[in-house]
Amino acid sequence: MLTCDSVTEKIHFDSSATPYQIGWKAMARNLSDIAAMGGRPLYSLVAACFPRHTPLSKALGIQRGLAAAARCFGVVMVGGDTSRSSHDIHLTVCLIGEVRRSEMIRRSGARPGDILCVTGTLGASLFGKHLRFQPRLWEAQFLARQFRPSAMMDLSDGLASDLHRMIGQSRVGFEIWAEALPISRALRSQRFSRNREIHHALCDGEDYELLFTLSPKRFRLLQAAWAEKFRLKLTQIGIVRPRSFGIKMFENSKGQTIRPFPAPANDHLRT
Amino acid sequence: MLTCDSVTEKIHFDSSATPYQIGWKAMARNLSDIAAMGGRPLYSLVAACFPRHTPLSKALGIQRGLAAAARCFGVVMVGGDTSRSSHDIHLTVCLIGEVRRSEMIRRSGARPGDILCVTGTLGASLFGKHLRFQPRLWEAQFLARQFRPSAMMDLSDGLASDLHRMIGQSRVGFEIWAEALPISRALRSQRFSRNREIHHALCDGEDYELLFTLSPKRFRLLQAAWAEKFRLKLTQIGIVRPRSFGIKMFENSKGQTIRPFPAPANDHLRT
Repeated sequence: MLTCDSVTEKIHFDSSATPYQIGWKAMARNLSDIAAMGGRPLYSLVAACFPRHTPLSKALGIQRGLAAAARCFGVVMVGGDTSRSSHDIHLTVCLIGEVRRSEMIRRSGARPGDILCVTGTLGASLFGKHLRFQPRLWEAQFLARQFRPSAMMDLSDGLASDLHRMIGQSRVGFEIWAEALPISRALRSQRFSRNREIHHALCDGEDYELLFTLSPKRFRLLQAAWAEKFRLKLTQIGIVRPRSFGIKMFENSKGQTIRPFPAPANDHLRT
Repeated sequence: MLTCDSVTEKIHFDSSATPYQIGWKAMARNLSDIAAMGGRPLYSLVAACFPRHTPLSKALGIQRGLAAAARCFGVVMVGGDTSRSSHDIHLTVCLIGEVRRSEMIRRSGARPGDILCVTGTLGASLFGKHLRFQPRLWEAQFLARQFRPSAMMDLSDGLASDLHRMIGQSRVGFEIWAEALPISRALRSQRFSRNREIHHALCDGEDYELLFTLSPKRFRLLQAAWAEKFRLKLTQIGIVRPRSFGIKMFENSKGQTIRPFPAPANDHLRT
């Protein structure tokens, strides 16, 4: 399997990010892509574009961040390219990974009646998590090997957009429970209104958690095994419905109060 | 084999480039990297960053250029990523290729006494060639399989810088003949002074021709075979010398007039 993904100054990080964090994020985003399919990353290439007069110390800091994330997850950095850019730092990481055919999870296998789960918590990205998140590689490999989710993806654009994407692939609907959403501590501490909090959790993007579906029977087995193995939270946030259901968000699994569910984020190309 | 390389607006192309040319260049640069080692490209990924409000027609034109170059050289585009940038268009292409171990050519095998050759002509890049060059894939595969050059690379930063790079790997010296340099018609038509013309040919970069070394005996055999197979020019521009010789440029193969040889281009990172 192959993945490649960019981070760009002023879009994916700003001047508050340390060089190490920039490098970490560039590598970790790609690791998260590999994780999303249950794969194992092997080799990476990095194409880095620096504006003229970038201090060497900054480039070296970025390199340290890239190398740290690679080392943490067993990736060998085999090469790349450095060139100039006119304004901003751009890093593109390309990862090669492997996955057994029997363990590869796509976005397309969700079936009505499946449980919809998410790892970790949502909505912390704007409060710093997007620069230091842990790609869920081990968790995804564990899921893929032992519990074979029917569909899986990583949350990069926000739960709302990413759920719409899973619908496009799996041709199902989703019932989401607002009360069940695992709001991050960082987001809670902002003391936003309940509506605003939920909006952040659904739309902020860059959570880099796993979103997956599996049968209720497997979910019960998973819950016990997960708690023994990982400290990371695992939450059921809804269930898979037939396609005609669309996406509806209820207050909780019993209630009938329907909350508005955000549309997917707009594309940035002008038609 | 793996390669990845970026093109950036205002650095590698400006507003005069058509979207198709931008896409072509992004793919062709990487193909040239694969060619440089005698490899065969197989699959590609593209990471594209567009500023907000990029017209969709522009993105599609770029896609057409990428796809055309891929199709010409038998590459399957298997995926990629599109994201936003704050100012400029950035394209990073990652290519996967294959090469038989016995046919892989490195930069490190040049030996004193070898002939130094270059394909095509030099110095046309600023006059438009950098947007529509042909990566020398077939030529490189032919060389690698049938004549096994002792060292080979593609000319991306200009003959002067790239020769310094080959010295770093092969630990030899070079004698260059100014009269032999195959000046492109586009450069000749500028009617620059002789010194300026040679400077452009050595330093402009982005010629994307092959630079290689091989034994005099193989070179004689190659000359006959090459003329039969390709219409592209093939020129001996000097010979490989021992390391202690350094790089010296003479007026011609007999003359003793020494011309100054440019130092390698500066790195763009500030130390």
